[in-house]
Amino acid sequence: MALISPSRRLRRTPFSDGVEAAGVSAYTVYNHMLLPTVFRSLEEDYHHLKHAVQLWDVACERQVEIRGPDAARLVQMLTPRDLRGMLPGQCYYVPMVDETGGMLNDPVAVKLAEDRWWISIADSDLLLWVKAMANGYRLDVLVDEPDVSPLAVQGPHSDDLMARVFGDGIRQLRFFRFGHFDFQGRDMVIARSGYSRQGGFEIYVEGSDIGMPLWNALMEAGRDLDVRAGCPNAIERIEGGLLSYGNDMTRENTPHECGLGRFCNTATAIGCVGRDALLRVAKEGPVKQIRAIEIETSSPPPCDRSWPLVAGKKPVGIVTSAAQSPDFGCGVGIGMVRMTHWDEGTELMVQTQDGVFPAMVHEEFWYKKQDVVA
Amino acid sequence: MALISPSRRLRRTPFSDGVEAAGVSAYTVYNHMLLPTVFRSLEEDYHHLKHAVQLWDVACERQVEIRGPDAARLVQMLTPRDLRGMLPGQCYYVPMVDETGGMLNDPVAVKLAEDRWWISIADSDLLLWVKAMANGYRLDVLVDEPDVSPLAVQGPHSDDLMARVFGDGIRQLRFFRFGHFDFQGRDMVIARSGYSRQGGFEIYVEGSDIGMPLWNALMEAGRDLDVRAGCPNAIERIEGGLLSYGNDMTRENTPHECGLGRFCNTATAIGCVGRDALLRVAKEGPVKQIRAIEIETSSPPPCDRSWPLVAGKKPVGIVTSAAQSPDFGCGVGIGMVRMTHWDEGTELMVQTQDGVFPAMVHEEFWYKKQDVVA
Repeated sequence: MALISPSRRLRRTPFSDGVEAAGVSAYTVYNHMLLPTVFRSLEEDYHHLKHAVQLWDVACERQVEIRGPDAARLVQMLTPRDLRGMLPGQCYYVPMVDETGGMLNDPVAVKLAEDRWWISIADSDLLLWVKAMANGYRLDVLVDEPDVSPLAVQGPHSDDLMARVFGDGIRQLRFFRFGHFDFQGRDMVIARSGYSRQGGFEIYVEGSDIGMPLWNALMEAGRDLDVRAGCPNAIERIEGGLLSYGNDMTRENTPHECGLGRFCNTATAIGCVGRDALLRVAKEGPVKQIRAIEIETSSPPPCDRSWPLVAGKKPVGIVTSAAQSPDFGCGVGIGMVRMTHWDEGTELMVQTQDGVFPAMVHEEFWYKKQDVVA
Repeated sequence: MALISPSRRLRRTPFSDGVEAAGVSAYTVYNHMLLPTVFRSLEEDYHHLKHAVQLWDVACERQVEIRGPDAARLVQMLTPRDLRGMLPGQCYYVPMVDETGGMLNDPVAVKLAEDRWWISIADSDLLLWVKAMANGYRLDVLVDEPDVSPLAVQGPHSDDLMARVFGDGIRQLRFFRFGHFDFQGRDMVIARSGYSRQGGFEIYVEGSDIGMPLWNALMEAGRDLDVRAGCPNAIERIEGGLLSYGNDMTRENTPHECGLGRFCNTATAIGCVGRDALLRVAKEGPVKQIRAIEIETSSPPPCDRSWPLVAGKKPVGIVTSAAQSPDFGCGVGIGMVRMTHWDEGTELMVQTQDGVFPAMVHEEFWYKKQDVVA
């Protein structure tokens, strides 16, 4: 593997000093920011995540803050999910689409108040889309990227660790709800959420200066829980069917193709710019869809490109993420498969840069310990 | 330095096979795509670029294609540069700004026809801004990212190499003009342009399938010219004062702060959404501006964050890019300095993660062999 060249453009985070001290060994780049991908090894990080508790520098989940009288209207323009029933204190997973129904991002919307929202984004400059929408439609809003950097606490011991730093009240936080908690006199928005199936929280750290004090306090408080620096784990997220924007879906795909039809209320999401385009697909269903793909090999190569899925010589889909699963003893993948071949148990072949392997389509992912979005 | 984790989200390019075969040792990520940064070493690549000829995989300079009756109107909305005199066949360097005059990108606009443009972008998802503008203002255009991947040929032997593959006609191509040339029956838009001060061309390769055939043909034709795989070189571009969006300027900055006032015609660029905001700064001038910063050290650390520039204890600017220059025998940097301290020869101190070094402000960059933008 090649090195990553440091530059200011690949932004450091408020937690980078902690990440480096913990011995990060690899990064990716996400929203023009460094996102750790490996500490000890992908496998060791994976086992630890499933049995202990980790701090994740996910500052790269940047926020698009929308404030002003037209805030709620603007957020509804961005997504086919009906937001009318959403209350302050709730987080919603919201597919965001362009005027053709193509996915622009799959963020979490955090409703701070009727007139103040954070959109916690995946890897695309959604800020530019939202700003131009506000400008083009002459909406009465301010749109900006605030100094807010999420720090995730993930793993089975998350509640115990968080309670030591924020008090036992945090245990009562419901899934995809957030509350306000105090740390050293600073208000922190904390949600029960995160990009793993192991449970945990995301702390929306407002103000870069408090980043390392919080990191150090959590590390100190969790010493006997074997807390470690970690990061979204490629194996675990594929086992759990957690999609990654840019990997498993792009602007080419509708939410329905991504299996996100349940987050689309095209009948009632009045104002969404992609609604018209999605009405038909919502009615008839997509012709291809995300599936779990089991790959018969003990060491799949890095999935750094789309791998064609073929039935005989006929292309019927692609694999977009893959890894070797220690717990399930097989290659695990995420792919997009045409309806003719998307049924459970369909046998296909997958063409990788290192050769062709047998693959099997599954309708369910491997790991469903708990929901991860609401 | 840490490794970079492969994934489909960090897109490969049509030239990646060639880049890997040439032994790339480091990458950055640019427009969600791999951009090589080092082959043999930063210094060896640098000397070779100045004396021979290199192929650069700059596919990450993605194109935003704008087609339709409102294309010219939309492009003018994006930039404060007056485009009325621009002819098909010309390339313009165009600062692009939001409604506050903040820089969103500093692309090259390629005018293919009155109703068809490519915007060859720096590192931000300008596509989302342009698409939302088109939607919000109900413009009659199609906006998309086509399968076009620039391949740059840079260095003093560029003309000789290009003439061997495209014919002697290419030598007549004027600076920042483009022409249509044939390669294996395929039409190629080729411009005399590029992100170095060493001269050369950018080939807008349309169709990924022709990428490696072209790469191989150029490599073969240039064997006796010592052609090598190369990439934008951090040392050379700083010596030459070539700005990098995300490094040396961000949405926080106006074009005037970036020294790009000469590309802003705020009096006549009717329709530019940032025009009103820029009128005042155009009249009064900015209070801080890009400068060359000489740093007194023989080995500056990686400039992976803003380095404060101080006069005594007073912060008066930042350094945003830096390297050690073999040819000029000093640390070379790019920074943004307040007007109180931006005069030639001003002595400051620069605070890096590895200590504090003396720095001197210069009004001219080190290397001005030829212009790089028009």
